[in-house]
Amino acid sequence: MCAPLVVDAAAGRDEWWVFAGSAGLTAFFGVTMILTTRSPMRRMNIRQAFILTTGSWLVLTVFSALPFAFSDLGLSYTDAFFEAMSGITTTGSTVITGLDSAPAGILLWRALLQWLGGIGIIVMAIAILPMLRIGGMQLFRMESSDHSEKAMPRVTQVASGIGFIYLALTAICAAALWAVGFDGFDAIAHAMTTIATGGFSTSDGSIGGFGNAPAELIITLFMIVGGLPFVLYLQAVRGRPVALYRDSQVRWFLTVIAACVLVLGIWHHFTTGASLGQSYREVAFNVVSIITGTGYSSADYGNWGAFAVGMFFFLMFVGGCAGSTTCGIKVFRFQVLYATAEAQVHRLVQPHGVFVPHFNNRPITEEIAGSVMGFFFLFVITFAAIALALGAIGLDFITAVSGAATAICNVGPALGGIIGPAGNFSTLPDAAKWVLSAGMLLGRLELFTVMVMFAPSFWRD
Amino acid sequence: MCAPLVVDAAAGRDEWWVFAGSAGLTAFFGVTMILTTRSPMRRMNIRQAFILTTGSWLVLTVFSALPFAFSDLGLSYTDAFFEAMSGITTTGSTVITGLDSAPAGILLWRALLQWLGGIGIIVMAIAILPMLRIGGMQLFRMESSDHSEKAMPRVTQVASGIGFIYLALTAICAAALWAVGFDGFDAIAHAMTTIATGGFSTSDGSIGGFGNAPAELIITLFMIVGGLPFVLYLQAVRGRPVALYRDSQVRWFLTVIAACVLVLGIWHHFTTGASLGQSYREVAFNVVSIITGTGYSSADYGNWGAFAVGMFFFLMFVGGCAGSTTCGIKVFRFQVLYATAEAQVHRLVQPHGVFVPHFNNRPITEEIAGSVMGFFFLFVITFAAIALALGAIGLDFITAVSGAATAICNVGPALGGIIGPAGNFSTLPDAAKWVLSAGMLLGRLELFTVMVMFAPSFWRD
Repeated sequence: MCAPLVVDAAAGRDEWWVFAGSAGLTAFFGVTMILTTRSPMRRMNIRQAFILTTGSWLVLTVFSALPFAFSDLGLSYTDAFFEAMSGITTTGSTVITGLDSAPAGILLWRALLQWLGGIGIIVMAIAILPMLRIGGMQLFRMESSDHSEKAMPRVTQVASGIGFIYLALTAICAAALWAVGFDGFDAIAHAMTTIATGGFSTSDGSIGGFGNAPAELIITLFMIVGGLPFVLYLQAVRGRPVALYRDSQVRWFLTVIAACVLVLGIWHHFTTGASLGQSYREVAFNVVSIITGTGYSSADYGNWGAFAVGMFFFLMFVGGCAGSTTCGIKVFRFQVLYATAEAQVHRLVQPHGVFVPHFNNRPITEEIAGSVMGFFFLFVITFAAIALALGAIGLDFITAVSGAATAICNVGPALGGIIGPAGNFSTLPDAAKWVLSAGMLLGRLELFTVMVMFAPSFWRD
Repeated sequence: MCAPLVVDAAAGRDEWWVFAGSAGLTAFFGVTMILTTRSPMRRMNIRQAFILTTGSWLVLTVFSALPFAFSDLGLSYTDAFFEAMSGITTTGSTVITGLDSAPAGILLWRALLQWLGGIGIIVMAIAILPMLRIGGMQLFRMESSDHSEKAMPRVTQVASGIGFIYLALTAICAAALWAVGFDGFDAIAHAMTTIATGGFSTSDGSIGGFGNAPAELIITLFMIVGGLPFVLYLQAVRGRPVALYRDSQVRWFLTVIAACVLVLGIWHHFTTGASLGQSYREVAFNVVSIITGTGYSSADYGNWGAFAVGMFFFLMFVGGCAGSTTCGIKVFRFQVLYATAEAQVHRLVQPHGVFVPHFNNRPITEEIAGSVMGFFFLFVITFAAIALALGAIGLDFITAVSGAATAICNVGPALGGIIGPAGNFSTLPDAAKWVLSAGMLLGRLELFTVMVMFAPSFWRD
């Protein structure tokens, strides 16, 4: 909170006290907790790892909502919590209008939340989820990480390497945006929310409001960069750039994007009558923004006809690669599900044949296949439950269904007139904001991390 | 086709020639095929079983569409094929308006198609799908049916027993409907489409048009009867009525219905202001109609608010029990998926514990769990693909999404103003009717039966 404090104070704006107060309150609670619970370091067991993971995301959100609540944007704590959760989970749904005239500190705070959320997710995907064996993430367990004492230094090393790459990519993106005409502040803020595939903008009109074609291209590229596995960048920097190209997840992801852009570009051209160049510019930006769960918009794709709307709806669920800043079901899970279903079809025809599904040239074990399928089932059921809850609160069908999807997939905008790409979440009832916040947390922590705590056996000794 | 021929001729209506012509044409093709392909009986291999299953449903539909095409209802062959497919798959979506003044033969033909489709599905679920090991149906393999030569007499015996029960239940339902005021024809036609959970009515207003509360109650009960596993009726008749009560699938199915009716009844009461009695009457009928995939309607639930609409949307996917006349994902698959996901959650907390998911007190093997999960994944993907195809044809978002759901789940009505419970499929473009027909066939044959033929390895020797 010190960075926005300094920015506001330097700009001579009174809002610096918002961050001073928030920082003071947070520090007070933090120090109190440290002092009252200090005890010799013990080894964490797996239950504590689950509680710590969910708990820390929740506590971070509670406190990072303070600046929004204290500011004079007129936000209730519900609104502030929603905005903070949307930031930290890199979702990008917003309840704030009037961003263009909002204090720079608040804008920077929103960008920072997403930027820190983004790196937090990568580290979690590398260090924690494979260990907890969440939804097939054990596929990405590093060779030595099952011997947990020995693994930690290795993981710390990898995490700091990735942190450096994350910082460097953000700087490159900011410099590129500055070079094509963004002012320094907008360039940095958008670079942070682009690489984190977050989607908070400094303008109510999102990226479309800037009307800057080169910037759209740069952001499109860096959203894709944010959607690839960061471990592979580390390998590339260490002299194995071919790793990125050889990874089947990366290939699938890029192929899906290319196919969707190709098809939707032609559809857009014939539906809206825009030129092919304009069609592909708008389609590429928005497809990448939705599939990576960034959530910027450069056009209201709600007006592109039912096929486009349907595509955007289903693309929300796809997400990017494991170990990236993206969310959703993720490409590798679709690969595992597809390979498993394909092996089943073969087995139907040749009941005595042996068909082993593969991912990235390695066989998929029964355990991993089951884990991924369990995740997929739980994802669909949770989506349905959130949509029903939103319907019960009073949202219309499209708002409820697409709102549930955008929350659990951490995308940002939904569909329809209210919370679509041209809308805003501020008019929703408070209850809906809490349900959506819960959905964002569930989606971001890959469901199981949170849900495991609702199993009675979790609390049994 | 002889039954409707006789009915029309007896009523002195000229339309009897429609059925005479259709029967003649069908007989001509049938006899030709028999004569040209006659060869000594050989044992069928598994590929031929797949081709025969899909092929026979398709050929049946092609020829049973003839009376619709020949009649003077003004239907194109596309419309006729859609209506026949909707009948034979017990879906219940219709393109015909003016049912109340339609010739009795056509109405009987529609009822007959669903009635025969219904028993066809039960027999397929007992005799064929377990053998082909489709989507976890191997759970219902009869003890001896893996030794296929010995099994056939047993299966034939069971099938004829079930056929008798099916006939008896239809007669009881018809008698009950007649007793509460339906005329003989309407009673028989509705009994046929009720027990088959088909949903074709003899009136444009569906069951709601009769305004007969006792009839609604009778139909509600018999739709539930149609949604339970018919093998258990056979066991009940043979002196083990307790089998029906002990079956976990039956319990889940009834519990889900009870819970949904309870919640939606109160919701309906407070949303529409109808009396509690009226609310529960409407809710019970329509919930049972949608979950069993029957598709009758007694009220336009599109006006009950987003929560109700969402519930009806997700209920479409649930379906009834395996071995019933219902369709959709089916209750046992949700049980298997739930049990598997639950075991996974336990395993996350206690990585070294052994947790075996159970269904009906028997352990679920890895093969069956994988089979069910593959089915679920393919179901969701197919649903999405159909919805996108309908969007590309030009249907709006709700029509496309709910139309895809109602086709693949073989329900009948969808949501929205066009093809909702108060609507009709006749105004859809031809391309949409073909896509929906394909969806009905896919859903009815549990996806894999059809899709396996698209695998290149299927055709390799």
